[in-house]
Amino acid sequence: LNTNIRIKLPVVCFTWQIAMIILFGVFVRYDSESDAHWPETMIQNNITSNTENDFYYRYPSFQDVHVMIFVGFGFLMTFLKRYSFSAVGFNFLIASFGIQWALLMQGWFGSLDPSTGKILIGVENLINADFCVAGCLIAFGAVLGKVSPVQLLVMTLFGVTLFAVEEYIILELLHVKDAGGSMVIHAFGGYYGLTISRVLYRPRIHQSKHLQGSVYQSDVFAMIGTLFLWMFWPSFNSAIAYHGDGQHRAVINTYLCLAASVLTTVAISSLSQKTGKLDMVHIQNSTLAGGVALGTAAEFMVSPYGALIVGFLCGILSTMGYIFISPFLEKNLKIHDTCGIHNLHAMPGLIGGIVGAITAATANELDYGKQGLINTFGLTGKLQSRSPSTQGGYQAAGICVALAFGIVGGAIVGGILRLPIWGDPADENCYDDEVYWEVSTTDTQHLHYIL
Amino acid sequence: LNTNIRIKLPVVCFTWQIAMIILFGVFVRYDSESDAHWPETMIQNNITSNTENDFYYRYPSFQDVHVMIFVGFGFLMTFLKRYSFSAVGFNFLIASFGIQWALLMQGWFGSLDPSTGKILIGVENLINADFCVAGCLIAFGAVLGKVSPVQLLVMTLFGVTLFAVEEYIILELLHVKDAGGSMVIHAFGGYYGLTISRVLYRPRIHQSKHLQGSVYQSDVFAMIGTLFLWMFWPSFNSAIAYHGDGQHRAVINTYLCLAASVLTTVAISSLSQKTGKLDMVHIQNSTLAGGVALGTAAEFMVSPYGALIVGFLCGILSTMGYIFISPFLEKNLKIHDTCGIHNLHAMPGLIGGIVGAITAATANELDYGKQGLINTFGLTGKLQSRSPSTQGGYQAAGICVALAFGIVGGAIVGGILRLPIWGDPADENCYDDEVYWEVSTTDTQHLHYIL
Amino acid sequence: LNTNIRIKLPVVCFTWQIAMIILFGVFVRYDSESDAHWPETMIQNNITSNTENDFYYRYPSFQDVHVMIFVGFGFLMTFLKRYSFSAVGFNFLIASFGIQWALLMQGWFGSLDPSTGKILIGVENLINADFCVAGCLIAFGAVLGKVSPVQLLVMTLFGVTLFAVEEYIILELLHVKDAGGSMVIHAFGGYYGLTISRVLYRPRIHQSKHLQGSVYQSDVFAMIGTLFLWMFWPSFNSAIAYHGDGQHRAVINTYLCLAASVLTTVAISSLSQKTGKLDMVHIQNSTLAGGVALGTAAEFMVSPYGALIVGFLCGILSTMGYIFISPFLEKNLKIHDTCGIHNLHAMPGLIGGIVGAITAATANELDYGKQGLINTFGLTGKLQSRSPSTQGGYQAAGICVALAFGIVGGAIVGGILRLPIWGDPADENCYDDEVYWEVSTTDTQHLHYIL
Repeated sequence: LNTNIRIKLPVVCFTWQIAMIILFGVFVRYDSESDAHWPETMIQNNITSNTENDFYYRYPSFQDVHVMIFVGFGFLMTFLKRYSFSAVGFNFLIASFGIQWALLMQGWFGSLDPSTGKILIGVENLINADFCVAGCLIAFGAVLGKVSPVQLLVMTLFGVTLFAVEEYIILELLHVKDAGGSMVIHAFGGYYGLTISRVLYRPRIHQSKHLQGSVYQSDVFAMIGTLFLWMFWPSFNSAIAYHGDGQHRAVINTYLCLAASVLTTVAISSLSQKTGKLDMVHIQNSTLAGGVALGTAAEFMVSPYGALIVGFLCGILSTMGYIFISPFLEKNLKIHDTCGIHNLHAMPGLIGGIVGAITAATANELDYGKQGLINTFGLTGKLQSRSPSTQGGYQAAGICVALAFGIVGGAIVGGILRLPIWGDPADENCYDDEVYWEVSTTDTQHLHYIL
Repeated sequence: LNTNIRIKLPVVCFTWQIAMIILFGVFVRYDSESDAHWPETMIQNNITSNTENDFYYRYPSFQDVHVMIFVGFGFLMTFLKRYSFSAVGFNFLIASFGIQWALLMQGWFGSLDPSTGKILIGVENLINADFCVAGCLIAFGAVLGKVSPVQLLVMTLFGVTLFAVEEYIILELLHVKDAGGSMVIHAFGGYYGLTISRVLYRPRIHQSKHLQGSVYQSDVFAMIGTLFLWMFWPSFNSAIAYHGDGQHRAVINTYLCLAASVLTTVAISSLSQKTGKLDMVHIQNSTLAGGVALGTAAEFMVSPYGALIVGFLCGILSTMGYIFISPFLEKNLKIHDTCGIHNLHAMPGLIGGIVGAITAATANELDYGKQGLINTFGLTGKLQSRSPSTQGGYQAAGICVALAFGIVGGAIVGGILRLPIWGDPADENCYDDEVYWEVSTTDTQHLHYIL
Repeated sequence: LNTNIRIKLPVVCFTWQIAMIILFGVFVRYDSESDAHWPETMIQNNITSNTENDFYYRYPSFQDVHVMIFVGFGFLMTFLKRYSFSAVGFNFLIASFGIQWALLMQGWFGSLDPSTGKILIGVENLINADFCVAGCLIAFGAVLGKVSPVQLLVMTLFGVTLFAVEEYIILELLHVKDAGGSMVIHAFGGYYGLTISRVLYRPRIHQSKHLQGSVYQSDVFAMIGTLFLWMFWPSFNSAIAYHGDGQHRAVINTYLCLAASVLTTVAISSLSQKTGKLDMVHIQNSTLAGGVALGTAAEFMVSPYGALIVGFLCGILSTMGYIFISPFLEKNLKIHDTCGIHNLHAMPGLIGGIVGAITAATANELDYGKQGLINTFGLTGKLQSRSPSTQGGYQAAGICVALAFGIVGGAIVGGILRLPIWGDPADENCYDDEVYWEVSTTDTQHLHYIL
């Protein structure tokens, strides 16, 4: 295999970035709240204070989400002993490309001004672009160490495209609620990555087994990723929730759910080892499962103890996933999942979809109030006659759409990535930064010493 | 000693998490600003904009505090060469448990709806729960490396309980102001931890002396903790201050105070060494003392230069604490204080209480304005006749309450923790992650090499 | 050379901190929004909601900028194998001093209450102080590893002074717009540092060549700095932009520009190596160039694709700067630039000034609206007749002022720093923490082993 990417990588980066510039030139403009005509908009709409600009409602949440995407996902994947440059660097690269493409794709489907044909963007679009890219970064976790940056860029191009269509079907056509993206982001991204990993299965991956593990320092670095994801997950689930009580409630629910996940993750991790020692892999990942599983229902009236129950169960299931399901998937289904995204994203994402469907189906005016029910589920206009139980059914349908896009899309994209032109590493060079990064000789010698 | 915690740890985690679910089910509901009935509340209270929802006043501060609790405290304690997993991992565990128990305890004392008997929670409760847990994490610093995670959970259970009672007495019964918790959080947490450490004194701790120090990388990791604590301390001290000028002023004061601490810490650290070299322990800890010492007075009109003076003095005292007081406490009082919490929290917390008492006693209408004085000290209702000098007296009383709860509570809890059932490490295994964590063999060999 | 700083460093720290306390006592007071008289101010100005307090508009941005200054700049410079303590510790020291001096200097020039002669401070002053210090931290990057902390404090004292004058001339006298500081911060700070480095040129610096490079872990630490700078740069460029659409637009533009920089940086980095491997130095630095280059124009109507074009070009230029210009500067002009601030700050800062001048000159009522044009460029009062093209001319003049202050100021300060009294390291001890920090013997042995 030829891992020389000196032509491929620059060509892809330049081509795509130039394409972005052209497409943004043709399509993308500021929306009314970020355009300099905003003072006129204020007068037209009787807005008396700049605080009503959506920027002030959403910017703090946006920044938290932004940290999750670049530091959270990036550092979570630094746990491998010799793949930290690639983890944080490729994460940086594909997220930077993905957010641009996402603004376009999501814009065409969701923010197109019908009169001018332009995509009008504001802070909510930036949050949604970050969300969209999260799906691709989840998929990255499954193939971490086994693909080239060029493959990752291709995977992101198609991933964002699929995401935008899937999201449009689920959120717009089916009018499913999924503010934190259990289905749209996590289930889709998880199964997209797992399917690609299946297609790219390497029977001789054990040849780089000596690099497939952590060292002490890399595990501490990964905890930076874990904690920033964990701390800011309330912002993730509330970032695009309804102004006021919706955002407020989504934060409370996610905060509680995640706290419960930590305790049950620790419990199962300790139980799983002979002398009760804890496993860093579980602590780094399964503690986050509660956030994923409350992605859909965070803004609903699940009640505080409901959030705790979801976190309780997901901590258990996710940790058991690392202990039992991941080895099973690798051995029996030939799905090798470097970061265990099945346990952190795919499975909790499905649970999240189910929790959302049940909670929506049982919503009622007593719990929400008349206006609260309308605001929370957006049941206005031609949807005003949709009942909560019908909404629950649509929510369930959303799960299927996310799954289908993930698996079918992953199979097709996996096929494309098998073409022998992308510069992917040989089996004995997987999980090694040296293939794609300048690493000093003393570092390499030192690594060989400690191994 | 048997450090096998395979049964103990899971049993405690599961029992407590299930108890939390049941108690939350019985007691905890959303408050009016996070409940879906908020649109009705808006109409009833003539609120015209969602921006008036407390969420938008407090959420950015909450997230900063959240980062301090999980990344700040967690990483600050990673400085030991072989205890980073435990530092960041146990910090994560006990904070996640503690915030749940704190919502209940603080709720019973402070947010109980009298008509329904329910605790109604919103973003301010989340901040207060984080604050409460901070007290226990401070105490963790004194015993770092010498206790088991089960002991830490027990310490947190009692710590949160004591905190809630102490806080109720100080803030509600005595109506003392302590927005940044100099007394309530830092003095209490500091003396609670120091007393426990005294009770658990190990005469043969020197047997693990080879692990009681830092290595180069662990010191850099610890600086992540230091900096996130330092940068976000203005949010800590302002998070629950009065809307508007109160929050604004608390930020300015804390910002200035911390900046002055850095310069005097560097000065004393340099003076203390033969050739003027700086000591990382001082830089990691004493630079933060100013934030602690302004916890009470941050929202008062201490004036900018007043804040600088507090920071100036605390940087000096805290650094000298590391040089002179910590060795004295260990040798003469048998108080071993792994992180030096006496110098960073206990002593500056007392200073903060005193600064607060003096500033309150000298408050007047000229400096504050009539309404400003009422808002800042909350002197409404039956307190409207309380004079500033009386308030100063109550503030001083608050210091005594915090101290008493810390010392008496610590003595009792320390006694409980001495029971030989908690799986604590042997003297020769202190400060070693290998007791409670899976660590790879190559890592262990490498550590032995570099020692 | 005598690197004993046991007297010098404490004397400087104490003297300056005491001076700060006195000057703050004489000059600095709370402004109307942070003073306890705010309730009266609200009544006088018919302000009905606390949300109108500038604190709520600016505090989230301030905290992001604060993280950039202390974690961003600090960790970005930890890339050297044996200089991480100094990078993050000296950054902490000089920023903490600098922000105090900046509040005074900027206050005298910009926030002086004419009736009382007092400087009135609020959250915007804190942001501006952080901005001012950024200029000095940029300059620190050029001399990293080659100067003593005493020299750094001197450099910061003069740097802040020069900055405040330069800023006053550019922003107030010339009424140039530069919200994100392309000229005022980056071009000034860059040329200030480069000129100082030229004056302090060490012909025998190669004697410590073995320490002038990174190791694996230090490169990962540096990525923490890179990412926090990159993620929060939208806050940097929008922090003091006009409320409402101005802040909103500055965020969108910076977000896009930075994303484009990442792709072209990766492309050029890969092209520059034989087998297309990526260089960590480029990824750590050049990915940020877009943020610098949009500092002036971020709040203007550059349009989304315009922002992408700026990022596209700056990623290329900055990376090529590392490959071609830095070696040239060192060899031919004797300018040794440890962090490559020429490529990350100085050059992109100039580009940013030019982009701003062109964008301002071509502004028109069609794009901005009548009120939008006035708000964005602040063309009120006696400036109301200034045309956009005139404004463009003034913007261009601003670039020259920044350059002149950087170069002339740097030459003078460099001369002062050459005095043989500051305790700077010998040529063979550059880039070594052991000169100024207590480092354990095992660490030193370990370093020698891996080298």
